[in-house]
Amino acid sequence: MQSQTFVAAAIQASPVVLDLDRSVEKAVGLIHEAGRNGAKLAVFGETWLPGYPAWIFGASGWDDPASKRAFARLQENSVEVPGPATARLCDAAREAGVHVVMGINERDKSFSRGTIYNSLLFISDEGQILGVHRKLVPTHAERIVWGPGDGSGLHVFDTPIGRLGGLICWEHWMPLARFAMHAKGEQIHVAVWPEVPDIHHLASRHYAFEGRCYVICVGTYTTSADLPEGFELAEAVGAAGDFGLDAGEILPGGSGIIGPDSQWVAGPVANQEVIVYGEIDLARIAEEQQALDSAGHYNRPDVFSLTVDERPRSQVSWIRAPQAVDSEPL
Amino acid sequence: MQSQTFVAAAIQASPVVLDLDRSVEKAVGLIHEAGRNGAKLAVFGETWLPGYPAWIFGASGWDDPASKRAFARLQENSVEVPGPATARLCDAAREAGVHVVMGINERDKSFSRGTIYNSLLFISDEGQILGVHRKLVPTHAERIVWGPGDGSGLHVFDTPIGRLGGLICWEHWMPLARFAMHAKGEQIHVAVWPEVPDIHHLASRHYAFEGRCYVICVGTYTTSADLPEGFELAEAVGAAGDFGLDAGEILPGGSGIIGPDSQWVAGPVANQEVIVYGEIDLARIAEEQQALDSAGHYNRPDVFSLTVDERPRSQVSWIRAPQAVDSEPL
Amino acid sequence: MQSQTFVAAAIQASPVVLDLDRSVEKAVGLIHEAGRNGAKLAVFGETWLPGYPAWIFGASGWDDPASKRAFARLQENSVEVPGPATARLCDAAREAGVHVVMGINERDKSFSRGTIYNSLLFISDEGQILGVHRKLVPTHAERIVWGPGDGSGLHVFDTPIGRLGGLICWEHWMPLARFAMHAKGEQIHVAVWPEVPDIHHLASRHYAFEGRCYVICVGTYTTSADLPEGFELAEAVGAAGDFGLDAGEILPGGSGIIGPDSQWVAGPVANQEVIVYGEIDLARIAEEQQALDSAGHYNRPDVFSLTVDERPRSQVSWIRAPQAVDSEPL
Amino acid sequence: MQSQTFVAAAIQASPVVLDLDRSVEKAVGLIHEAGRNGAKLAVFGETWLPGYPAWIFGASGWDDPASKRAFARLQENSVEVPGPATARLCDAAREAGVHVVMGINERDKSFSRGTIYNSLLFISDEGQILGVHRKLVPTHAERIVWGPGDGSGLHVFDTPIGRLGGLICWEHWMPLARFAMHAKGEQIHVAVWPEVPDIHHLASRHYAFEGRCYVICVGTYTTSADLPEGFELAEAVGAAGDFGLDAGEILPGGSGIIGPDSQWVAGPVANQEVIVYGEIDLARIAEEQQALDSAGHYNRPDVFSLTVDERPRSQVSWIRAPQAVDSEPL
Amino acid sequence: MQSQTFVAAAIQASPVVLDLDRSVEKAVGLIHEAGRNGAKLAVFGETWLPGYPAWIFGASGWDDPASKRAFARLQENSVEVPGPATARLCDAAREAGVHVVMGINERDKSFSRGTIYNSLLFISDEGQILGVHRKLVPTHAERIVWGPGDGSGLHVFDTPIGRLGGLICWEHWMPLARFAMHAKGEQIHVAVWPEVPDIHHLASRHYAFEGRCYVICVGTYTTSADLPEGFELAEAVGAAGDFGLDAGEILPGGSGIIGPDSQWVAGPVANQEVIVYGEIDLARIAEEQQALDSAGHYNRPDVFSLTVDERPRSQVSWIRAPQAVDSEPL
Amino acid sequence: MQSQTFVAAAIQASPVVLDLDRSVEKAVGLIHEAGRNGAKLAVFGETWLPGYPAWIFGASGWDDPASKRAFARLQENSVEVPGPATARLCDAAREAGVHVVMGINERDKSFSRGTIYNSLLFISDEGQILGVHRKLVPTHAERIVWGPGDGSGLHVFDTPIGRLGGLICWEHWMPLARFAMHAKGEQIHVAVWPEVPDIHHLASRHYAFEGRCYVICVGTYTTSADLPEGFELAEAVGAAGDFGLDAGEILPGGSGIIGPDSQWVAGPVANQEVIVYGEIDLARIAEEQQALDSAGHYNRPDVFSLTVDERPRSQVSWIRAPQAVDSEPL
Repeated sequence: MQSQTFVAAAIQASPVVLDLDRSVEKAVGLIHEAGRNGAKLAVFGETWLPGYPAWIFGASGWDDPASKRAFARLQENSVEVPGPATARLCDAAREAGVHVVMGINERDKSFSRGTIYNSLLFISDEGQILGVHRKLVPTHAERIVWGPGDGSGLHVFDTPIGRLGGLICWEHWMPLARFAMHAKGEQIHVAVWPEVPDIHHLASRHYAFEGRCYVICVGTYTTSADLPEGFELAEAVGAAGDFGLDAGEILPGGSGIIGPDSQWVAGPVANQEVIVYGEIDLARIAEEQQALDSAGHYNRPDVFSLTVDERPRSQVSWIRAPQAVDSEPL
Repeated sequence: MQSQTFVAAAIQASPVVLDLDRSVEKAVGLIHEAGRNGAKLAVFGETWLPGYPAWIFGASGWDDPASKRAFARLQENSVEVPGPATARLCDAAREAGVHVVMGINERDKSFSRGTIYNSLLFISDEGQILGVHRKLVPTHAERIVWGPGDGSGLHVFDTPIGRLGGLICWEHWMPLARFAMHAKGEQIHVAVWPEVPDIHHLASRHYAFEGRCYVICVGTYTTSADLPEGFELAEAVGAAGDFGLDAGEILPGGSGIIGPDSQWVAGPVANQEVIVYGEIDLARIAEEQQALDSAGHYNRPDVFSLTVDERPRSQVSWIRAPQAVDSEPL
Repeated sequence: MQSQTFVAAAIQASPVVLDLDRSVEKAVGLIHEAGRNGAKLAVFGETWLPGYPAWIFGASGWDDPASKRAFARLQENSVEVPGPATARLCDAAREAGVHVVMGINERDKSFSRGTIYNSLLFISDEGQILGVHRKLVPTHAERIVWGPGDGSGLHVFDTPIGRLGGLICWEHWMPLARFAMHAKGEQIHVAVWPEVPDIHHLASRHYAFEGRCYVICVGTYTTSADLPEGFELAEAVGAAGDFGLDAGEILPGGSGIIGPDSQWVAGPVANQEVIVYGEIDLARIAEEQQALDSAGHYNRPDVFSLTVDERPRSQVSWIRAPQAVDSEPL
Repeated sequence: MQSQTFVAAAIQASPVVLDLDRSVEKAVGLIHEAGRNGAKLAVFGETWLPGYPAWIFGASGWDDPASKRAFARLQENSVEVPGPATARLCDAAREAGVHVVMGINERDKSFSRGTIYNSLLFISDEGQILGVHRKLVPTHAERIVWGPGDGSGLHVFDTPIGRLGGLICWEHWMPLARFAMHAKGEQIHVAVWPEVPDIHHLASRHYAFEGRCYVICVGTYTTSADLPEGFELAEAVGAAGDFGLDAGEILPGGSGIIGPDSQWVAGPVANQEVIVYGEIDLARIAEEQQALDSAGHYNRPDVFSLTVDERPRSQVSWIRAPQAVDSEPL
Repeated sequence: MQSQTFVAAAIQASPVVLDLDRSVEKAVGLIHEAGRNGAKLAVFGETWLPGYPAWIFGASGWDDPASKRAFARLQENSVEVPGPATARLCDAAREAGVHVVMGINERDKSFSRGTIYNSLLFISDEGQILGVHRKLVPTHAERIVWGPGDGSGLHVFDTPIGRLGGLICWEHWMPLARFAMHAKGEQIHVAVWPEVPDIHHLASRHYAFEGRCYVICVGTYTTSADLPEGFELAEAVGAAGDFGLDAGEILPGGSGIIGPDSQWVAGPVANQEVIVYGEIDLARIAEEQQALDSAGHYNRPDVFSLTVDERPRSQVSWIRAPQAVDSEPL
Repeated sequence: MQSQTFVAAAIQASPVVLDLDRSVEKAVGLIHEAGRNGAKLAVFGETWLPGYPAWIFGASGWDDPASKRAFARLQENSVEVPGPATARLCDAAREAGVHVVMGINERDKSFSRGTIYNSLLFISDEGQILGVHRKLVPTHAERIVWGPGDGSGLHVFDTPIGRLGGLICWEHWMPLARFAMHAKGEQIHVAVWPEVPDIHHLASRHYAFEGRCYVICVGTYTTSADLPEGFELAEAVGAAGDFGLDAGEILPGGSGIIGPDSQWVAGPVANQEVIVYGEIDLARIAEEQQALDSAGHYNRPDVFSLTVDERPRSQVSWIRAPQAVDSEPL
């Protein structure tokens, strides 16, 4: 039987923005630190590798050279799954004995190689990649930089520490995605955000209550010092709505851990680089399910019929001779 | 074109518990007061007529005489739609020029006459009954006293003051019911509760953001003085979790009005009998829909297929000769 | 509002078998007696007018002359609705201020005039015929003498003393007929039988609990002395299963009145001619509906869809010129 | 051809309340005992594994900590189908050569894992799970603890000992559910109850007559000694209507076996832990069907059209690529 | 047989930006003018009603007030299909005897009412709406303001002037969408753009050659004088890549008509408000199809299998009783 | 990591028409020249070995002796892969350190040996044959001389200089073939033509933009002097549409190199024998993919499902005893 109690860590730190190698290096260190402090689960914020492209909210035209250069740099520093960066993260997870959920800019390896996805990468404490979830609908100007995911990433993994899933940012306002996750019996939900202001706390706590699950709510803490030196879109970052350069803080954090009754177990903490630790006690979930089980006794399947298409949406399906395994990379 | 701006009133008052006639009389007075103060919409709390049966949370066995007597009294003081009580409310709505949304214990007129539903009654400012929504899933011990509604009550009415709908209490944690309402283009959402503590504020604000709509969030203010004299289940009311007799307050209110960005427009106010007024500006809704439209550009209908069965679930269907209209009441 | 409390009378007596006139005369007397004793409802047994044809259970061949003569006599002494016999009963009901439910052998006036039905006649305390219910399925050898009714007789009448309906004998083992009656909100159920042994008590009490209603459970008390003098099928009556001539009792009664919790309010009484009086308190019904409402909150209309065809089944439909309205079918 | 005569056993015993392992162990012993005594069918009472949650009838508020803890304990000790507990029961059934019908608290494995159902588990004498029936409508405060089943569990299994089905408790007052079972040609009906007082005997006998079937009518015998030591809701059990701690008896039994003429074949027996054995002779059923066949010659399908929706009501339907079998548990 | 030769008009003009009524009025005048000049087909540019939202390319954060106000204004001035604006256009088309293809900002009437689509509206010369195509993938920052269409809008209409279809802007770089249109036997292709620089000419000419069809290639001519007075995002329009305010020209046009051999039949013309007329001779298409027919003899269906899902993607499907037509607008 | 910048060479020269040996010799020289000038990729025109059979456009009857002789001569001078000609080319590529893409008339070695294909041969800078692409649909009169290829040749090779693929002539108007190439992540696209007039420039530039790739666009420069002396079909060459003998130029060239934004990087150059050199900078590709990725974020896989059958289409499959592996098909 799975353990009922363990410590989770919301890692509120900054990546080395747009530098994949150095960001992975920093992540490895943080995973080890969380493991030393007893955590069995470590969660990083949205597209932590290699950073949330806040500059797109100050986007100029589709052919603007600086914007195109920034995209190219982001693509080059994006993560292929599997790939060298994931191998390093898997090693760290295994060595530290920690499950890792990492927000990544994911570069598609299967088709075209041109599109980046806003993804969540799940790694087991044995260093195995459990799966990837690609954000279904990027928000507002995010749609300039990320492609939409498909239904194949609505994962809930049955791990030794419990049933683990996650959604990204405003997916928490997609009622049908939430319901799909609830129906899979999620116990530990990862909610990643670029930053976690009041409105994101609201959505995270609502999710915890509705889903009768713990929510590890994680944002990133990034200051202007974490941007690449001389980054030509630094001003665009500053001009974007939520993301201010005035105080030097681009993303102020706000991470914490929420219980299945919607109350804070740890945090929330903002305005600093910090690992927020909280104790997860899975036994509390059952206590809450008596009054509400939104994909169980509190649903009305005679009124609402939901079908979720979990098939991957390939750009092309190739028919190839089975014996002649095609060694072409794509 | 419909008016864009108007005043809504969240009526936080107590009914004369278990006395339908006197409660209707009080409601009529409150509707007129709201109208005099310029409101075009007046909303009462969950099962305001003739009161929320909080005693069920201290329920004893199915054959307990006191519990059975309380049920019979509640049934006798429940509202038939249409019926004498609704006629009085409709008159008041017409005279005051106010749309009224009233929480009622509704007694089924069509079948058996034995079952009570937790319903929301919608009345136009011309005194017409627009429709009724029956709560789909009563919560916890509420299931002892109310039957479940069906999908025919998921209404959004296109009124002169905007597209008006409502859900009852923990229906706000039914993601599929929420989505159905969003998809109907709801602009003014009525969220009724027995009382409105923090967790209900959370759900109400989350709904406003997700649905890009105004939420009129209404609870009841009831003290022990509002119970019938010598009510034999007064102690059971006191024993129930949330509902305390200590301070004399059984239901403390907590009503307010929330904008489509999840921020409070008016209130919330608790611990007093009060009408909370707030200005609704429908033009603000469109401003918020650019970033999120959960049943529009922010949905993924290729991944999620939801079917809602809106057909009324009759206990029996009668085939009768069309010329011989059967005058039997049922 | 309708009165909640009144007295009902189960009239356990014998008709003058096969003599309609004298039986009606006796019935009129009994109605007046019940009225004098304060009853507002008087119920007679199955096919009381002019008697239950128990001899059919000793039936011989289809062409047996004695059997054929008995049928002809029964047909001649059957009741046409409306007709002279019903007029006398209506007068009595009006004069006594009593609602009357009478078991009759009903001769069809509309088609052929050859078929007899096992019917229940409902008369208001104002002397109006409320309606007739024809037994849907005669039992066993009864099928020799009665035709089957149709769905147009599944009445529940909204009278000043409450919602009144009835079924005949083994119709109480027709679950769909029971459900239809429950769904019509029946409060006072008439269950008529030729006699009321233990197994019929069982069905009557079960009906009361399931339907949350009072059951006026009425059988006939007939002795061999009530048969026509020299009745050539007297021996056949004796040979029939339940109906013994040994003690002179052909039908021993067993009537009583049952509350909505399945407990006896009055009786049961057997082996005598007697009027069983019992008090009906409609307010008790609501108390029981909290725990069970079989055509309300305790049904599952999403699983079970029942359609009842209440249209009369005419033997022929005549198309006639509109100017020549034929006011008398035969 | 199937054997016409065999011995059935109504097992009136107590589980080790809220201890699934030890309760299963006890059940295994009882199955073996019944088998040694010649029984081919052994039936346990309602939610025997791991006990009927009588404390809910003394329910306090939805957020009451003790109530929530009790629910969590019940959920943890509920049965997954299939699962370790059913494997042990299947082994016992096979070894003893006995068909087993067991009342269980069933935890949903397919969706959410949060909801418990009040279920009947059917196991063949070859140790195969035949199917599960989930109670369609929990009664009164039971609705706090169990979700509603769907139409997919209205099973009648064609076994070597006859056509075997079952309903739970007050489902015997659901006329449409009864009719569905009759229509499936049920010969041996299992009627499980927490306890079997007079009113439950009434429903059981009525069912036998109406359905022309044997009824194995089984309640549980539990005393306060069978509760967990120091169980914090022991007082709530005592306060609930039917369930008294005064005499130490919480559930007094009352089990027995009824023939298709509604008469007792064995029992009923109360106030002791006992196995009630009775002989079933299927040949007697046909004898009774001449006079009544409620879903046959005694029905009126031209008047009553019943449709039963037996489709399982999934919370979600997943579309998955057929070749890529998804190994995720839910 | 349909006529082979007719005159088409590419209407290169400016709408009254963000003013639907006045823009429709101007469109009506232009349709009449084109009709008077002998045109049988009149095509307007991308989202001509009520203007292309070029300001989004200077987008700031998702919560920026000015951006939200601009969206709300656009939504309010968007076109419902059918609706008052389409009625006026249909009247004009019928009166002028001209087929009209109009770029519109389309507001969804069926769900939510929150999302705008970038659509092409097709109207016959008899004033009938033939259909609507919603752009499948908005480009870059356009994704902030428009939702994605579905496969139900890949229309080719068989009109009296030939088989007529259209795509919007960068859909011309969607090879699979192109192939679907070619496969439908399109003869007259409408290619609408905000403006038509060299790269858009390239795509339009390539399409004509590949599809063996005429291409009516239409852009809008808008100057800063066409913006609303005091428009608060005027600067954002100027900052966006292609769209300059320097010379006062925001959208410079560049419209023309291309033959099935990729050569210009008329135009292209830029930097002025003008109607470009060109003669279409359908007979020339067959001449070109000998050498290339990309969805015919020049395809390889044994190698490439394309399936196009043309089903509309509803946000919700409602099951409603057929007899009870639901009068609710949504 | 692969180099991002290198020089490509479009070799616009004439083969020694219909003389394989001398043509290969000339090719070897050109490869060495390109290598000396720093090129890492050298591309020759369509069927450069041993020349494009332009005479077929002046084709006479199927049994015309001169036409038959010309075909035989072409077959004899066609290239077997692998074979002596490819060995010489591979040596040259290795020695010069240049990737070579060569248009060839390819004679099938596997079946029949009768058919010639219009193929593209890919050789690595290490002298390895990477693969062959056979033109899927020859154009117009080309169908007289070449058979159609299959889906096994839609290669994109992952080479040290980038992901390299190619299509032949009017395959650039096959949208499904283009999409398949885009989906494979092609970075450097070889577009070979007999000659490259405006319309071929159009297709090449369109491909570059749609595929976000570099296009090496290569045609042949051939004059009448390059024909075999006394070639009996010289007149037919002159009569063919595009190919004129007047100025002595049969194929005038027109080669160049295009960037992923559709703009020329080098050339185009016509009317001379020349090697056009251009610098390829793969980093520019990512910059363009932000706005368009036609087989990524700009596709709609939910609408368009494309399956490409890449299996080789054998004329016959031989079942042979496994021990006697036949290493040479013919």
